[in-house]
Amino acid sequence: MARNITPRDKDYSQWYLDIIKVAELADYAPVRGCMVIRPTGYAIWEMVQRHFDEAFKRTGHVNAYFPLLIPNSFLEKEAEHVEGFAPECAMVTHAGGEKLEEPYVVRPTSETVIGHMYSKWVQSWRDLPILINQWANVMRWEKRPRLFLRTSEFLWQEGHTAHETEKEAREETIKMLEVYREVMENFLALPVITGEKTEGERFPGADNTYTCETMMSDTRALQAGTSHFLGQNFARAFDIKFQNREGELDYVWTTSWGSSTRLIGAIIMTHSDDDGLIIPPCVAPVKVVILPISNNEALLNERILPLASALSERMNKAFGGLYSFVDKQFHLRPGDRFFHHLQKGVPLRLELGEKEFEKYTVRAVRRDTGEKIELPQEGIEMKVQEILDDIQTSLHSKALTFRKSNTRKAENYEELKSIIEEKGGFAEAYFAGTRDDERRIKEETGASARCMPLCDETRGKCIMTGKDGRKVIFAKAY
Amino acid sequence: MARNITPRDKDYSQWYLDIIKVAELADYAPVRGCMVIRPTGYAIWEMVQRHFDEAFKRTGHVNAYFPLLIPNSFLEKEAEHVEGFAPECAMVTHAGGEKLEEPYVVRPTSETVIGHMYSKWVQSWRDLPILINQWANVMRWEKRPRLFLRTSEFLWQEGHTAHETEKEAREETIKMLEVYREVMENFLALPVITGEKTEGERFPGADNTYTCETMMSDTRALQAGTSHFLGQNFARAFDIKFQNREGELDYVWTTSWGSSTRLIGAIIMTHSDDDGLIIPPCVAPVKVVILPISNNEALLNERILPLASALSERMNKAFGGLYSFVDKQFHLRPGDRFFHHLQKGVPLRLELGEKEFEKYTVRAVRRDTGEKIELPQEGIEMKVQEILDDIQTSLHSKALTFRKSNTRKAENYEELKSIIEEKGGFAEAYFAGTRDDERRIKEETGASARCMPLCDETRGKCIMTGKDGRKVIFAKAY
Repeated sequence: MARNITPRDKDYSQWYLDIIKVAELADYAPVRGCMVIRPTGYAIWEMVQRHFDEAFKRTGHVNAYFPLLIPNSFLEKEAEHVEGFAPECAMVTHAGGEKLEEPYVVRPTSETVIGHMYSKWVQSWRDLPILINQWANVMRWEKRPRLFLRTSEFLWQEGHTAHETEKEAREETIKMLEVYREVMENFLALPVITGEKTEGERFPGADNTYTCETMMSDTRALQAGTSHFLGQNFARAFDIKFQNREGELDYVWTTSWGSSTRLIGAIIMTHSDDDGLIIPPCVAPVKVVILPISNNEALLNERILPLASALSERMNKAFGGLYSFVDKQFHLRPGDRFFHHLQKGVPLRLELGEKEFEKYTVRAVRRDTGEKIELPQEGIEMKVQEILDDIQTSLHSKALTFRKSNTRKAENYEELKSIIEEKGGFAEAYFAGTRDDERRIKEETGASARCMPLCDETRGKCIMTGKDGRKVIFAKAY
Repeated sequence: MARNITPRDKDYSQWYLDIIKVAELADYAPVRGCMVIRPTGYAIWEMVQRHFDEAFKRTGHVNAYFPLLIPNSFLEKEAEHVEGFAPECAMVTHAGGEKLEEPYVVRPTSETVIGHMYSKWVQSWRDLPILINQWANVMRWEKRPRLFLRTSEFLWQEGHTAHETEKEAREETIKMLEVYREVMENFLALPVITGEKTEGERFPGADNTYTCETMMSDTRALQAGTSHFLGQNFARAFDIKFQNREGELDYVWTTSWGSSTRLIGAIIMTHSDDDGLIIPPCVAPVKVVILPISNNEALLNERILPLASALSERMNKAFGGLYSFVDKQFHLRPGDRFFHHLQKGVPLRLELGEKEFEKYTVRAVRRDTGEKIELPQEGIEMKVQEILDDIQTSLHSKALTFRKSNTRKAENYEELKSIIEEKGGFAEAYFAGTRDDERRIKEETGASARCMPLCDETRGKCIMTGKDGRKVIFAKAY
């Protein structure tokens, strides 16, 4: 089989696109900047959704659905918000054969329309907190689209909560950041640094923005999810008032938090290799493929294939759903069948040939390491699950080790520049600069301030201003 | 507590809206014709989705996602299709701060853009069948919106399949109609008549449209889902060609099928009563509420409430998820607490007062019948599930009996008119007329041809033309 994936060290961008094409994850839509999420890509998204949705519900959140279209005037009610989003908006100007009196914006995010509804639903402190999440499509017109990472339309979830007190809203902001981190680390095997965004990178309309930052295998950063403390900004803009426990009218405190289909891009760029896609078992739609192999057609059809089906059924019964499936592409050579599943990222391949059939074994081959393991057919369910657990853990550790070995300290601006330019990766530095300083660093090095990590509250001399500053991670980012 | 629901016999439309308001299922959006699906309504939709999604996957379908925006020129490629949908379309004319060269339509349905993608993906018979479903929002501008039933934006699923042969595509069309029927009958407790639409009611671009028709409690019909055999119409319009087994180029045969959030409207209008919402246990987000009741605060807090929590946990453990919950609205009177859950449609209420506490029992009250049953606390899980099963079955039988007793035969047009005008409900008649005859019946009686039922293939003299005709059901419809 011809090699159809560009190696990473030759052209990382092309490698990424080749993986998506070969694994049939997504395709370009006929509308510029938009994508089609193909069944394999969507099945990964469904797994990702399930893990997040369960975590949201476990922490007391409920789902709801708000309208796609937002009156343009709503965006204008929050000054920073409209400034941030207006340039990216798609506008509906005609509907039902008529020109609309006021154009509608296709939602780029839903703080405004949800704020409007909350102002109708909230009267007293007894109506609070409101803990709502929405799974939806949003639209932000992209000049430089890139499948999964930046598309004009994407799928996401956006949480929107309203609280009685600042303290409670701040706690919610951090709680959801932590929920993101847990799901990303435990299920997507993405090592994440949680931190606060600097002023220049804040969500338009937020008092504080927190982020989950991950490192891709080319050492660039990717923002995997954000959580915003919105203060009373949207409450004032949309008049979300309530009678507090003291009987006085007060504005609510709100938060919002989002993560999107770009997580699929993060999974691809964190784990995959030059042979194709690698996905962590916890988000792999199918975890195991069994390949019956023999040139003896009678033996294959009468003995080996039925055995393969029985093993598959046993595993599916033990672990539910479509855990494993049997490959029946007998018109292909074994090598091509192996390669097919390798490229598509199935975490574990079980080969069942004549030799294995006689020895009551299967030959397991790990997608992540290529390691081959002989397994007894008896008790295969638990053995396979153990290997999958190990793959899950290994992918995470490997990515974490990679990130650590590509994270460097910069004592001054020159060091920062040389790290970014010569070595890449994350550069840690103390920083107390302004938006202008951030802009200058970005222009001169291509790196942006990714976050002020929550796990490191040390302070030191700012590399730009010499003032006392917080630890900030700088990196080139997607 | 004040009565806040208009009785059905006074004003059925207002009753429907009152139920939605009181049970907090949906609200009006600030964009005309659009709705907000509130958490309780959305939780019902999630249950409905789950049952359909499982049935689709069981029958070999996979999910994918196609873009929201469709180039206007795509709609124009299929003549009937554009004629049917153009008047309802919302148009995006500006994006990213610029006027677009070609306006985009916000998808009213996705046959066109999916057809475009299939033409890229299909080369040989080996690529067929394609069995894809999409869960998405769509937009059809509504002049007379009505929550859940007709809104300018709604949520739905749309299946789109492509096949080698006409026979296979026809079988798929009927198979999915049957999947709809099964899910609607077994989980939503909606008795459904499956049938083919007459020419005047066909989907724009389809050769044949099949439908699931249900009767609401005011005897009007509601179309709950449709399945279309699209022939090679979209294949020709979008050039979806493949090399067949004989090595010749041929057009694929396609189908599409959809059901939407209007199913929530169907559930409300089939099962609810003048006291409020009634929902079948299989789609109820919470199936059981337990109410600890006592004026003795110490007894309540130290004994009865912990027992209620323990019973709830036992049930949730046995049946998974949020099966039951404990009502702790102790600031309300017991009667108001009962009424609260009654209006919200919780299928079973378990009262745990001092008497029950002493007797090791609970008092169960069915939402559908009001029947009170004394249950032992021991083995409560199975007892409760038995009652819920019975509620599920009863709701279906009750609705089926209602439909049967409101279905009448019309031997001629005069009889049809008098049935529709005086009695309402479904009128069965033989019909062999044209689109014009259908139009005349609708203008003169308000009733439309709902379907030619698949279960009744008898033929007879058409009530309009005297020709040999098929059995058709006529009714006023939502």
